Amino acid sequence: MSSMAPKGRQRAAPKVASGGQPAPHGSTMHRRNPVGSGIHSHESFSQADREAIYRVIFERRDVRRNFLPTPIPDEVLARLLNAAHHAGSVGFMQPWDFVIVRARETKRAVKQLFDKTNEAAALRYDKPRAGLYRSLKLEGIEESSVNLCVTCSRQRGGPQVLGRSTVRDTDLYSTCCAIQNLWLAARAEGIGVGWVSILDHAALKKVLAIPRPVKVLAYLCLGYVSEFAARPDLEAAGWRARLPVQELVHYEVWGNKAEGNGRKLTCESPRSIPEPAMRAKRG
Amino acid sequence: MSSMAPKGRQRAAPKVASGGQPAPHGSTMHRRNPVGSGIHSHESFSQADREAIYRVIFERRDVRRNFLPTPIPDEVLARLLNAAHHAGSVGFMQPWDFVIVRARETKRAVKQLFDKTNEAAALRYDKPRAGLYRSLKLEGIEESSVNLCVTCSRQRGGPQVLGRSTVRDTDLYSTCCAIQNLWLAARAEGIGVGWVSILDHAALKKVLAIPRPVKVLAYLCLGYVSEFAARPDLEAAGWRARLPVQELVHYEVWGNKAEGNGRKLTCESPRSIPEPAMRAKRG
Repeated sequence: MSSMAPKGRQRAAPKVASGGQPAPHGSTMHRRNPVGSGIHSHESFSQADREAIYRVIFERRDVRRNFLPTPIPDEVLARLLNAAHHAGSVGFMQPWDFVIVRARETKRAVKQLFDKTNEAAALRYDKPRAGLYRSLKLEGIEESSVNLCVTCSRQRGGPQVLGRSTVRDTDLYSTCCAIQNLWLAARAEGIGVGWVSILDHAALKKVLAIPRPVKVLAYLCLGYVSEFAARPDLEAAGWRARLPVQELVHYEVWGNKAEGNGRKLTCESPRSIPEPAMRAKRG
Repeated sequence: MSSMAPKGRQRAAPKVASGGQPAPHGSTMHRRNPVGSGIHSHESFSQADREAIYRVIFERRDVRRNFLPTPIPDEVLARLLNAAHHAGSVGFMQPWDFVIVRARETKRAVKQLFDKTNEAAALRYDKPRAGLYRSLKLEGIEESSVNLCVTCSRQRGGPQVLGRSTVRDTDLYSTCCAIQNLWLAARAEGIGVGWVSILDHAALKKVLAIPRPVKVLAYLCLGYVSEFAARPDLEAAGWRARLPVQELVHYEVWGNKAEGNGRKLTCESPRSIPEPAMRAKRG
């Protein structure tokens, strides 16, 4: 394995053998890590690694269509849950649980909850927005091979959770971070994930027998897909445009749109912006 | 580029040229994507890509120490913010903003807020837990080169945000997903990120002049680090142990610890669990 010196940190490329396994090495800095696990905490990421990581971030989609009937192998689902489980959590609380739903009848019951809530939601819009709303596909509950309810057990860490005394909802925030881990890992596996937020969580808890003190964070639909959309569905449908990220950056205090010396970030490098169509459209 | 057929989806390895740039290709399926950006939405991820993605998920840490004085170049910071900005958001609301803090005096003011809140938090524990608590390093506000306050503008999407009518806090959840994107991208860049949750957000908003309707989600400390810890700090310090992920999985309904036919997931594959010491300890 190449140097761990700070200078080499950014550019050092880990040697990857032809099978995709990191090459063995003998550095004493890695002693705390398992032998043969392929996971070493002190390694830097190569340029190719970083590109893969940015690519999965940019190409993750909220997926509601193109699901294939191909089942998700248990070992792949296990990898996704393990990825979720390796999010950080306030006070190392690990407040999440995962309810795996595969049964048709359960999916149908949840789909009925969605339909009821979605009909009410559609009534909130006037024409022509209402027509556009109804044309959007907002869930893939029955088409996806696995549904996954992610919850947050708010009492898991006992009454005193380190770091949670001032901002009580940090356990929810940790659980969202876990969901994002799963979402990215799924994209890397070719599995689409759709987050169904149009659901009455109290009713959903009854369907899944989730106890009262446990909070539902997300109901996700997972499945292999024939393709991932190049852009988010709502952007492609003209529902809303992507905001230029520069407009969301403040310097030192809110509202300062540049540093004192006029310096400001340029966020739209070719590598980091995958949608030039939007860039052109917004000038 | 190799086949997009479902069979080849999982194993197809994109051709990567020696410089780490995906090789050019001419598939019509990619036409919507930018030429020369290196980002193509329909590509599958190679085994090496997936390993990098899992590795960054497993090796991300909540970092409070080992910060180097090396400044973060603007283009790197821009990449991190862009990664955050490419999280999904309810109704494509993109509710986040980023306040970049570099000034010593601002950091000092925030550090004082931390000290005050942390002293109160320490008093909640009895011995010997109180002693252990005080020995923990829980922030790197002044040592890290950039502090970043991530907020959620709850009114950004107008009164009717698609998908948010039933679960109003989905905008907060989206913002957390954005933070996780940034956290992972930072790890890939060799940048440690620490989430300081022991802060009075009302007082913090005054320091950063954040308007009343905008919610503070996170105060992050970012900087290059000399090394990343092999395990989370709180685990290494014996504050709490990692839970076996299997214990957090339910089948069909809450509390079912296996499928009807007795089938259950095995989550501890060597590749996916980086901490064999913990596995051994918990049997």
